[in-house]
Amino acid sequence: MQPIATNDFVIIVRDETEKERGGLLIPDSERHKVKPHSGTIFSVGDMVQSQSVKRGKGKKCLFHPTVGWEIDWEGVTYLYLRGAEIISFV
Amino acid sequence: MQPIATNDFVIIVRDETEKERGGLLIPDSERHKVKPHSGTIFSVGDMVQSQSVKRGKGKKCLFHPTVGWEIDWEGVTYLYLRGAEIISFV
Amino acid sequence: MQPIATNDFVIIVRDETEKERGGLLIPDSERHKVKPHSGTIFSVGDMVQSQSVKRGKGKKCLFHPTVGWEIDWEGVTYLYLRGAEIISFV
Amino acid sequence: MQPIATNDFVIIVRDETEKERGGLLIPDSERHKVKPHSGTIFSVGDMVQSQSVKRGKGKKCLFHPTVGWEIDWEGVTYLYLRGAEIISFV
Amino acid sequence: MQPIATNDFVIIVRDETEKERGGLLIPDSERHKVKPHSGTIFSVGDMVQSQSVKRGKGKKCLFHPTVGWEIDWEGVTYLYLRGAEIISFV
Amino acid sequence: MQPIATNDFVIIVRDETEKERGGLLIPDSERHKVKPHSGTIFSVGDMVQSQSVKRGKGKKCLFHPTVGWEIDWEGVTYLYLRGAEIISFV
Amino acid sequence: MQPIATNDFVIIVRDETEKERGGLLIPDSERHKVKPHSGTIFSVGDMVQSQSVKRGKGKKCLFHPTVGWEIDWEGVTYLYLRGAEIISFV
Repeated sequence: MQPIATNDFVIIVRDETEKERGGLLIPDSERHKVKPHSGTIFSVGDMVQSQSVKRGKGKKCLFHPTVGWEIDWEGVTYLYLRGAEIISFV
Repeated sequence: MQPIATNDFVIIVRDETEKERGGLLIPDSERHKVKPHSGTIFSVGDMVQSQSVKRGKGKKCLFHPTVGWEIDWEGVTYLYLRGAEIISFV
Repeated sequence: MQPIATNDFVIIVRDETEKERGGLLIPDSERHKVKPHSGTIFSVGDMVQSQSVKRGKGKKCLFHPTVGWEIDWEGVTYLYLRGAEIISFV
Repeated sequence: MQPIATNDFVIIVRDETEKERGGLLIPDSERHKVKPHSGTIFSVGDMVQSQSVKRGKGKKCLFHPTVGWEIDWEGVTYLYLRGAEIISFV
Repeated sequence: MQPIATNDFVIIVRDETEKERGGLLIPDSERHKVKPHSGTIFSVGDMVQSQSVKRGKGKKCLFHPTVGWEIDWEGVTYLYLRGAEIISFV
Repeated sequence: MQPIATNDFVIIVRDETEKERGGLLIPDSERHKVKPHSGTIFSVGDMVQSQSVKRGKGKKCLFHPTVGWEIDWEGVTYLYLRGAEIISFV
Repeated sequence: MQPIATNDFVIIVRDETEKERGGLLIPDSERHKVKPHSGTIFSVGDMVQSQSVKRGKGKKCLFHPTVGWEIDWEGVTYLYLRGAEIISFV
């Protein structure tokens, strides 16, 4: 069966094409420049606090490239984030 | 007697067949890839916050492979997790 | 006089027979296997949060073998735990 | 004037006879065995959370032997504890 | 698509002209003198606590020069701050 | 002008005679014996939590000898404490 | 434009004459003696908790000499404090 998120977890299916669409990473001496990863929200846990994330199923979102766990389940790779780790929709 | 969870504990009976059904663990330089463990929720403590976990008795769930304590009680092995350590139903 | 718990303390009288009934402790490379201790709840403090523990006077419960303080008072040995340290009833 | 507790402090007058009545301290390899101190509650601050401690003026109570400050004021020795440090009435 | 902030994030488009308008940075032995950066608020997440920041879309604001992440998305550079990192409007 | 406390600060004018009235400091191997300082409450900030301290203007109180800042303002020495640092009235 | 505080920040314009009016700093072996700085409250952020500070615009206040950031903006030097860092009005 497909996973259903619990607690404050959000399950993401990452974009296959994101590498082509992603931004450019340029070292910057003053501030951290981040190349975000993107994906589509697959399931949202009931303890996620942000109302915009709670209603975000099916939307494309951005997140920091180092957060979350990747889990392979019945042939699909899912990314498990905390709801608070989603920084924006796009 | 069979154990009844208190506080924010959840008691799990792990799947006998999970080793055959589990995902694949591939080292990944960018992100932590995790092979989750699975089991069936046996009892849920009254201080668990997530409503989905509270109503999860009898459902199959996923959790990180390193969390919880295993306890043998009257011939059965139970896994004691915190409710917040369940990452999804499957 | 017999002690009456305050704050979030729970006073336990440990089982005399628990050593015979307890589970088996087997080292486990993946996960912590714990041999719990058991006892009967004698008094529950008014600041214990869990409703199940609050109503648990006289019930037999399990707890981690290392938590709490043992206190001898007028010839009886009591175990003082925090209410949140009780992991299940049995 | 006699002190009146504020905040979450409780003022205790220790038992003169407690040394004769106290329990026995035996080293224990598994768990901390504690010889509690006892005293009578003299004044309770208004920020004490436990309702049982709030109504405890004049009652005899137990506390850990190392907590609190002793203060001599106008010829009397008082012990100042936090309300949450009282573990039981006796 | 343009990004829409989630959680407590605020998305800023930095001022092109701020370098000409910014204040002067003078070392100060007593207190930290800071040359703030400025920008215009582009999107505000639903978990931002400050009501003034919540209603701040389109306003020019100041923030510490070291906070936030810069993200390039579809040819525009955005600055992602936490709402609590905005110190004033100007 | 005379100072008016804000936030959770309490402004104290210390007793001139307290050195003559104070308790005795005797080293004690078991427990910390403290010689408290005393003073009269001059002003109470609006964020002080304890209702007894909030209504304590003009009352004499005790506090630990090491807490607070002394500030000389227009010829008077004031002691600034947090409201939670007052341990009792006397 | 002049700055308007957000979040829990308070913007202060420091007294030009405070150096002449300030208290005297004498080392003290028992307690920290502090020479406070003074200034006039220029703007108060909407997340400041203390009601007295919220209504303090235009009032003269005291604060610890080491807190806050100085920011020069359009020819004026402002001091940015957290609202909780104001210790009294004078």
